[in-house]
Amino acid sequence: MNLGVFVNPRKPDVADAFGRVCAAFEKRGWTVTLDEEGGAVVGRPGVKRFWEGADLVISIGGDGTFLETLHRMGGAPVPVAGVNIGHLGFLTACQDEDVDQLAEVVTGGLHLQVERSMLRVRMREEGGKEHEFLALNEVVLMRGETGRLVSLEAKVDGEILNEYRADGLIVATPTGSTAYSLAAGGPLVGPRAEVMVMTPICPHTLSGRALVIGDDSVVELSPSGDSPEPILFTVDGRDILRVAPDSVVVVDKAPNPLRVVRLPGHSFYETLRKKLLWSGGGL
Amino acid sequence: MNLGVFVNPRKPDVADAFGRVCAAFEKRGWTVTLDEEGGAVVGRPGVKRFWEGADLVISIGGDGTFLETLHRMGGAPVPVAGVNIGHLGFLTACQDEDVDQLAEVVTGGLHLQVERSMLRVRMREEGGKEHEFLALNEVVLMRGETGRLVSLEAKVDGEILNEYRADGLIVATPTGSTAYSLAAGGPLVGPRAEVMVMTPICPHTLSGRALVIGDDSVVELSPSGDSPEPILFTVDGRDILRVAPDSVVVVDKAPNPLRVVRLPGHSFYETLRKKLLWSGGGL
Amino acid sequence: MNLGVFVNPRKPDVADAFGRVCAAFEKRGWTVTLDEEGGAVVGRPGVKRFWEGADLVISIGGDGTFLETLHRMGGAPVPVAGVNIGHLGFLTACQDEDVDQLAEVVTGGLHLQVERSMLRVRMREEGGKEHEFLALNEVVLMRGETGRLVSLEAKVDGEILNEYRADGLIVATPTGSTAYSLAAGGPLVGPRAEVMVMTPICPHTLSGRALVIGDDSVVELSPSGDSPEPILFTVDGRDILRVAPDSVVVVDKAPNPLRVVRLPGHSFYETLRKKLLWSGGGL
Amino acid sequence: MNLGVFVNPRKPDVADAFGRVCAAFEKRGWTVTLDEEGGAVVGRPGVKRFWEGADLVISIGGDGTFLETLHRMGGAPVPVAGVNIGHLGFLTACQDEDVDQLAEVVTGGLHLQVERSMLRVRMREEGGKEHEFLALNEVVLMRGETGRLVSLEAKVDGEILNEYRADGLIVATPTGSTAYSLAAGGPLVGPRAEVMVMTPICPHTLSGRALVIGDDSVVELSPSGDSPEPILFTVDGRDILRVAPDSVVVVDKAPNPLRVVRLPGHSFYETLRKKLLWSGGGL
Repeated sequence: MNLGVFVNPRKPDVADAFGRVCAAFEKRGWTVTLDEEGGAVVGRPGVKRFWEGADLVISIGGDGTFLETLHRMGGAPVPVAGVNIGHLGFLTACQDEDVDQLAEVVTGGLHLQVERSMLRVRMREEGGKEHEFLALNEVVLMRGETGRLVSLEAKVDGEILNEYRADGLIVATPTGSTAYSLAAGGPLVGPRAEVMVMTPICPHTLSGRALVIGDDSVVELSPSGDSPEPILFTVDGRDILRVAPDSVVVVDKAPNPLRVVRLPGHSFYETLRKKLLWSGGGL
Repeated sequence: MNLGVFVNPRKPDVADAFGRVCAAFEKRGWTVTLDEEGGAVVGRPGVKRFWEGADLVISIGGDGTFLETLHRMGGAPVPVAGVNIGHLGFLTACQDEDVDQLAEVVTGGLHLQVERSMLRVRMREEGGKEHEFLALNEVVLMRGETGRLVSLEAKVDGEILNEYRADGLIVATPTGSTAYSLAAGGPLVGPRAEVMVMTPICPHTLSGRALVIGDDSVVELSPSGDSPEPILFTVDGRDILRVAPDSVVVVDKAPNPLRVVRLPGHSFYETLRKKLLWSGGGL
Repeated sequence: MNLGVFVNPRKPDVADAFGRVCAAFEKRGWTVTLDEEGGAVVGRPGVKRFWEGADLVISIGGDGTFLETLHRMGGAPVPVAGVNIGHLGFLTACQDEDVDQLAEVVTGGLHLQVERSMLRVRMREEGGKEHEFLALNEVVLMRGETGRLVSLEAKVDGEILNEYRADGLIVATPTGSTAYSLAAGGPLVGPRAEVMVMTPICPHTLSGRALVIGDDSVVELSPSGDSPEPILFTVDGRDILRVAPDSVVVVDKAPNPLRVVRLPGHSFYETLRKKLLWSGGGL
Repeated sequence: MNLGVFVNPRKPDVADAFGRVCAAFEKRGWTVTLDEEGGAVVGRPGVKRFWEGADLVISIGGDGTFLETLHRMGGAPVPVAGVNIGHLGFLTACQDEDVDQLAEVVTGGLHLQVERSMLRVRMREEGGKEHEFLALNEVVLMRGETGRLVSLEAKVDGEILNEYRADGLIVATPTGSTAYSLAAGGPLVGPRAEVMVMTPICPHTLSGRALVIGDDSVVELSPSGDSPEPILFTVDGRDILRVAPDSVVVVDKAPNPLRVVRLPGHSFYETLRKKLLWSGGGL
């Protein structure tokens, strides 16, 4: 069996964690292939396309590293397991110290594969270049370094929904509902709900509330009004581009979900309670 | 073709509106059967089970009358069209003055039937009586006339979600997302999203946010803590009961959706914009 | 010096805590007078008006006991120190185990007296009885056990502010901003801001936001619309009354603030961070 | 009597409105001095310091023009009246068509002067330059065009309040409570409440709520954490600067309030109801 590994080169203890992952999987007969940058940090040869031929990819870091791993893989259909260094994550399968257990479970085929839906986004950048991205958390359209609002016309399935006047607008997956959308006031969404969430950022109307729609819908967002300045665009907190003024940003469900590896006995709701101190902070 | 009609006996212009409905449908060959109470108001014989044998039921009043009509019908699989007297409604098909158009469209089979999912709720009342209800908008568990909080343990698909300490908890359908759940801070939900929304009412923790889950989930709610006083229970703002302290309130999707009649060319998003003044009220 | 003591008769360890308070103050020459009910629990004679002639009152319990103590005292101008059993409180001066330190500091005159503004509320109950209350946290007008909304006309300084349609309306002090008002979505207010906060409970409009006004204002609230059912009224989560339909509830600042005793070196913001886990729960 | 006038050169009907203002005041014996830029648009000589020697300044445009007028005047103690072209404003005294009435009332000394408190802000820009600003609405610290959060340590009166991790932080006056702070979830504040409001923008914790403090407090904000990128700073939506990483931004109440001219019979609460459609949008 082949394991591809991506490590966050900026986390301090990453060499130790990588060593532990290697040991755990190699002693069970796996071949381990590391990514190029991580190889430089760890002092071991690495390859650019670390996921090719892999049966499993392990991402060592946190939720941010997990997102980075995905974006490198560009939609390649290999399941991914996140090994966490530091705080509890929503996306990661286990903590650093549990990698031996992870290797045991995965080698025995006893792990769970949770499907997480992703968004496909097509847009045209200022200058005319066309792009297509996959988003695990969210797509954001927002204002740049100006005092001006963003005016966005939103359509759902070809029908006009609203003209948003706000600092920005987030289209999030259920996975992304615990990230930026939550900070902007959006609801929590269970991992199996087949929806996307449209959450305005600082809407300049008192009635701006998040909207949840089925994930078989197609959302189209286009700059409206006479904004002289281009609107910024990001995917999963990365890839900052400027949207062409006459571009229509089209968001729908990606054809393939991400397969995330989880250990048995762990649940989304348990992580939610712990991570968000959900039941704590009583008044 | 047979038409069943339910009218809100407390709305002032209901006799006029009923007259218009009758005229519009009878001249197109329909037989009209009125409900008993409405009959008394309108001065015409009525029957208790006005929906029996009907091809269509018309509810004359507003969203509240629409809910009342449904609860009378107890899940009978007849499509319902709401005729509105007064303010624009989320559930009604048209205004009072458009009934002739409604009759024309329905008689020609050109109307739309929108399916709206409903919740099925099973609970045991204080004293031991078992109940099963259908909810188009929401189920609410809340405190009575006391200064005490409600403590509720919530499970989703058998797994513990959270212990809510709040004034109450709402489980809403997409249809109900524009009603009480919205007032309590919940998100808007498009009519085709296959979800339910769990929205706490005045949660006594800063981290209490609405949760959206797939509508194939089963939610179980049970009084926890040492609440000496019974928790109140309502369905669609009606039927106030006291929950037995050891009862488990079980909520899942009703086997059959409600079929709501709509005129072509009207949309949920349009109603949303108008009804909630959604794009208005700029800062 | 004379010490009046009120204990929460329902807290388990109250006899121990009372013993510690007695010992700490009596050995420094204070005379201790206990309340009647507490006396029965602790097994020691008590008096009804435990605060009369006292230089300081100590309330043993939590924030709820502190509120109860005040309501017993009915505005008597004696400073109050809360001794906490259990969770950290917003109103209490110290934990149970710190009472010796408290006695030392107070006897030496080194404690702080923080003034907390209170609200004065005048209302007429259904049946015609007039009442005047003092509120340390908040006054609440809310619906009873019905599905109906409350309609309230609110005036500020004689000028119409709004007609609220909601589950209820809270008028809170800065002290009360961390209690029910916060649960209903209101802002936190620092203890020295000279304001009151009007926070609607589940307002049935998307634009219902809390309003902060100067505490030299007079707020008048009167039932409006055609509510057939009386509105409930509570002060600090106690004293549930039904408001007469033609009553005007008048809220202004109480002539005298409460003097709360605090130990040096403790701050409101520190309690806020700890109690509300304010910096925790990162996304 | 001398009138200084500032006009928004980008509003279409500004020459007409200026003509009406001129006519109304000149026929009552006032001398009118126009600003330089406005003069170019209107075709009439103008001066840079249009407010010097004026008994009253009139700002023709909307709330944005009003803010611009103030910033030009740099704290000069001349009362300002806003004449509105277009939508109803929070800051303006009257609509375009009411200028004759305004001139009559002001000439007769029958107008009201409302004091609106302002914030004084001192900060050091990247590169070392020191600045002092006056803010009528708000001061904002926020992230630039990056995916990174802002980490800000906030002190109130020298005491640590919190470390905010958010998209940004707003410190608003009561006047500013209906502007950006409201969009970010802050409360409404009546014009006479002597407070400032600290409202986090998309706080990355579920417990981030707005905090209201007395306006005699001093707020200090300093970049914390290891943000490699500078934090942006704006005052009243203008003057975008980058904060030096070791700068402390100090905010307190400006020594002098702004004196805003209002016509009798108009009130803040009336504007609030109309402008925010506050009682509208019923669910």
